[in-house]
Amino acid sequence: MALTLYELAAGERRFSPYCWRIRMALAAKGLAAKRIPIRFSDKVQLAFSGQDRVPVLVDGDTVISDSWRIACYLEDTYPDRRALFGNAIARGSCRLINQWADRVQLAGISPLVTYDIFRHIDPEDRAYFRASREKRFGRPLEAVQAERDERVHDFRASLAPLRATLGEQPFIAGDAPAYADFIVFGGFQWARSISEFPLLEQPDPVYGWVDKMLGLFNGLARQSPGYTW
Amino acid sequence: MALTLYELAAGERRFSPYCWRIRMALAAKGLAAKRIPIRFSDKVQLAFSGQDRVPVLVDGDTVISDSWRIACYLEDTYPDRRALFGNAIARGSCRLINQWADRVQLAGISPLVTYDIFRHIDPEDRAYFRASREKRFGRPLEAVQAERDERVHDFRASLAPLRATLGEQPFIAGDAPAYADFIVFGGFQWARSISEFPLLEQPDPVYGWVDKMLGLFNGLARQSPGYTW
Repeated sequence: MALTLYELAAGERRFSPYCWRIRMALAAKGLAAKRIPIRFSDKVQLAFSGQDRVPVLVDGDTVISDSWRIACYLEDTYPDRRALFGNAIARGSCRLINQWADRVQLAGISPLVTYDIFRHIDPEDRAYFRASREKRFGRPLEAVQAERDERVHDFRASLAPLRATLGEQPFIAGDAPAYADFIVFGGFQWARSISEFPLLEQPDPVYGWVDKMLGLFNGLARQSPGYTW
Repeated sequence: MALTLYELAAGERRFSPYCWRIRMALAAKGLAAKRIPIRFSDKVQLAFSGQDRVPVLVDGDTVISDSWRIACYLEDTYPDRRALFGNAIARGSCRLINQWADRVQLAGISPLVTYDIFRHIDPEDRAYFRASREKRFGRPLEAVQAERDERVHDFRASLAPLRATLGEQPFIAGDAPAYADFIVFGGFQWARSISEFPLLEQPDPVYGWVDKMLGLFNGLARQSPGYTW
């Protein structure tokens, strides 16, 4: 097996949304990868990649970081396997979905689960995590957590374009899932891996779609340690 | 010529964002269409389509309404011409972009230009327009207009995913424009057709992209009556 994926870990939990995009993409391509857990305090182990963020994929002599670049690499290197994009228009258009996920979906989820991440990560990671996140949010993690029952309504409202899409078709990519689905699913799987706070509630087409995504590839995501909403 | 497009008109100005999506799609497919102007007070003329909204496309014996359905019809009926999607993944993924455009972009533009629409439409349309929009906004059109210098900052911020995408690649669909571009461009062309209020300012990758879109198909959109920001 030539592939190795470095992914963010808290004990048995693998919770980076960007890593989950690639876990799903690898599964779609039918590619197995050795998985190396990286804690926040292990990031020096990524120095070989020339940067310090997960995911990092190693394929033989090739080292690639950044989930978008990894997805493009997989599509270009393994074009005869199931398509992540399938053509240039899909790849281009998915980049806007990738940016929407990063800047709207993940930015919306982050304050809702940040204290739960703190609770789950290994003790040696906690000082770094608390300091960096409290600087970002401008207040204690406990204060961010205390706002979430109110804040989740805005988060759910921000999913309106996704909700409407999934009310019209089974997957973001249409009748079958592709990389657009893996992008957005990664955010929910991130939260689900580390937090019992229900980001979604039934009835909601987004909830139903997450459930379908959890079952893909023999239940890959559902079987990973996480909570049930 | 077998194609006819019914589009929203205010005098010489054609300002429906949904109609502009189809104008651009027809141009990409190299299809000419007879264009029938429809004012708000003319909507009874659309009764043959079984509904009262533009755009409506008539292709021989086929009548199609709703911009998304028209785009899919054009792609399926004229598959050998330039692709709007090119595959099922692109079509599926573009539906999320279509929903984002409707619910974020157009919803953000609407209060910024609604009074300018009122000023431009034909006098017989004004009572209907004022009543329906003031009901939607819950206050006089003049009050909505008065807020726009403040509100435009939130609108520009809401374009962050689009801005980041266009900072990375020339068009939403990648190296060349496709329907994802026509969807989002329609919103800016709507505003530009009817309002001199600058939704975008330089430097902004979105501004540069709008400028490129205005030049497509021999300057189709730039030559249509409108304002320069």
